[in-house]
Amino acid sequence: MSIHDLLNQNFVAWMDAEKGPASDIVISSRVRLARNLRLVPFPHLLDEKRGNQVVEEIRKAWKKSGYHELLAMDLVTFNELPLLDRKILMEKHLISPEHSEASASFKGIMVNKDGSLAFMINEEDHLRLQCFLPGLQLMECYNRLQGVDDELEKYLDYAFDEKRGYLTSCPTNVGTGMRASVMLHLPALAISGQLNRIFQNVNQLGMTVRGLYGENTDAVGNFYQLSNQITLGQTEEDIINNLTGITEQIVEQERLTRERLLKEMPYQIEDRIGRAYGILTNARVMTSNEAMLHLSDVRLGVDLGIIKGLKPFALNELIVALRPAHLQKKAGKEMEPFERDVKRAEVIKEKLARYQK
Amino acid sequence: MSIHDLLNQNFVAWMDAEKGPASDIVISSRVRLARNLRLVPFPHLLDEKRGNQVVEEIRKAWKKSGYHELLAMDLVTFNELPLLDRKILMEKHLISPEHSEASASFKGIMVNKDGSLAFMINEEDHLRLQCFLPGLQLMECYNRLQGVDDELEKYLDYAFDEKRGYLTSCPTNVGTGMRASVMLHLPALAISGQLNRIFQNVNQLGMTVRGLYGENTDAVGNFYQLSNQITLGQTEEDIINNLTGITEQIVEQERLTRERLLKEMPYQIEDRIGRAYGILTNARVMTSNEAMLHLSDVRLGVDLGIIKGLKPFALNELIVALRPAHLQKKAGKEMEPFERDVKRAEVIKEKLARYQK
Repeated sequence: MSIHDLLNQNFVAWMDAEKGPASDIVISSRVRLARNLRLVPFPHLLDEKRGNQVVEEIRKAWKKSGYHELLAMDLVTFNELPLLDRKILMEKHLISPEHSEASASFKGIMVNKDGSLAFMINEEDHLRLQCFLPGLQLMECYNRLQGVDDELEKYLDYAFDEKRGYLTSCPTNVGTGMRASVMLHLPALAISGQLNRIFQNVNQLGMTVRGLYGENTDAVGNFYQLSNQITLGQTEEDIINNLTGITEQIVEQERLTRERLLKEMPYQIEDRIGRAYGILTNARVMTSNEAMLHLSDVRLGVDLGIIKGLKPFALNELIVALRPAHLQKKAGKEMEPFERDVKRAEVIKEKLARYQK
Repeated sequence: MSIHDLLNQNFVAWMDAEKGPASDIVISSRVRLARNLRLVPFPHLLDEKRGNQVVEEIRKAWKKSGYHELLAMDLVTFNELPLLDRKILMEKHLISPEHSEASASFKGIMVNKDGSLAFMINEEDHLRLQCFLPGLQLMECYNRLQGVDDELEKYLDYAFDEKRGYLTSCPTNVGTGMRASVMLHLPALAISGQLNRIFQNVNQLGMTVRGLYGENTDAVGNFYQLSNQITLGQTEEDIINNLTGITEQIVEQERLTRERLLKEMPYQIEDRIGRAYGILTNARVMTSNEAMLHLSDVRLGVDLGIIKGLKPFALNELIVALRPAHLQKKAGKEMEPFERDVKRAEVIKEKLARYQK
């Protein structure tokens, strides 16, 4: 498989809403495991030579293994991948914004065709194994990663301490090295002003809430990323079950609030959704943030049955297709912000028309 | 002809844009002549008995005359016409807001089937003869009124002074008793910030600018009413020619500015127009003022050829069909403001769908 298959399409596995439980509210699930090689400095202390050795060790392990998940992956270092393509990977949520900025030969990615598995090489840790799936499927993500992780461990000497568990670059990851997260769409809780209270409760349960693109990004369009803070003193299964349980509760509250809003203020809700759809399908210029706001309302309309014929998959695809790098990849050229805003409006119209029966 | 034909349809003559010159910018032309009966107090000093005598004198003159324009009219006093119907006439611009509030037996209207002629009885003057036509047709309006006025003068003893001309209740109308006005749609001049300058010039030329429903009403949706201030010392033809000339200049400036805007900022203009259309056709709740703002943009889109298949007539009809009395007449019941806002959104969708091919 070549990474270019992935770069040249919008699709990645987590968009496939029909395959994910509770995918009206839980857009995607992600689990990542941070792993490092014993006796090798962490990436921020690596020079190019030492860094390249890390890449080669990982490459060797990959080549040696006959594991089916690993066989289906490609390994690319970022000296071989233009910035635009790295941004594409970032916009698909497969790598972090920081990692996408790196062009060094010892930074890279291993990824499979549908982007359900994406491993960052020499990001904050030597290896960050990630699995992405649509809807609420944290345990499925973990299980897939565990298979890969066990296999790689046969060929890689992981930095592991009997007492502390996996050692990581940042102390907050020591232990399981695991971060599990879900991307939630919570428009009704936002409209009804309940989010602050819920997020406070979530924090007290050891979870963190962030925006769409992780740390230091804003929550645009009522999309929130919920993840575990604690990696030490709990088993992987406990962390997954805990986050799954909290997510199920939030999903239930969002669903009840949607029903209540639709009952108490049907015209206002339909109006909000209708206007968002009308603007998206008729505007000629649109910023990314504005698009996300309207897409949030349209998604709510689809979930409530007010907008018919439009698939949640199309909306997931749009979240990504409207980002700057995807727009430029599609246009085949670099574009100024205003040009992108024009192209964005064009892409929205095209996509909404194509998917609506 | 019965006034109910007029009350039960949205259509009035001035909406018929295809029949009016420059009707992309000049919505309608109106001329009115203020006339009073000799030796009878002006309306604000009339008691019911004396007022009814005025109505009867007018009715007698109307019955005696065999003039074709008069034969085609109906005379109704406002004790016979419910408030809702009087509001309908006001919203069609055929009577003033003040006149629509009156329910006395000596207040009334004479009107023909398409509303091109509408005479207010005992409004500010005993008789206010009005003619309304689409586009820039002030002289045509005046010519039709002159025919009617000459005919009525055969049977009515008008208060006329050789030196001062026609005597009127308000001194500003003495002389010709004539007010000529045009309703203009000036979105490009508004967008480009040129209106203040133009209106200042217009004032210096003895003209007044007002909102959509005349004195004391705001200009909503870039619709402006331009009329002569002076009624004394000029002939009717001079007044008409003067206002026609000024209007033609403003039309020219609006057209040039539209071309310039479309050349200099095509995306922004198309965006503005597209969004207005998208909101109008997808909203579920809409206030009257918001509707006028979007209709103004959609009308500009139709004029510029950006929106196709929608007729200016449909937009003229909507200006009136969306007003509170028309909405309530259509719904067949009184409605609270929020109910009207819901009904209004419904009517907009229906009309835009019906007229768009």
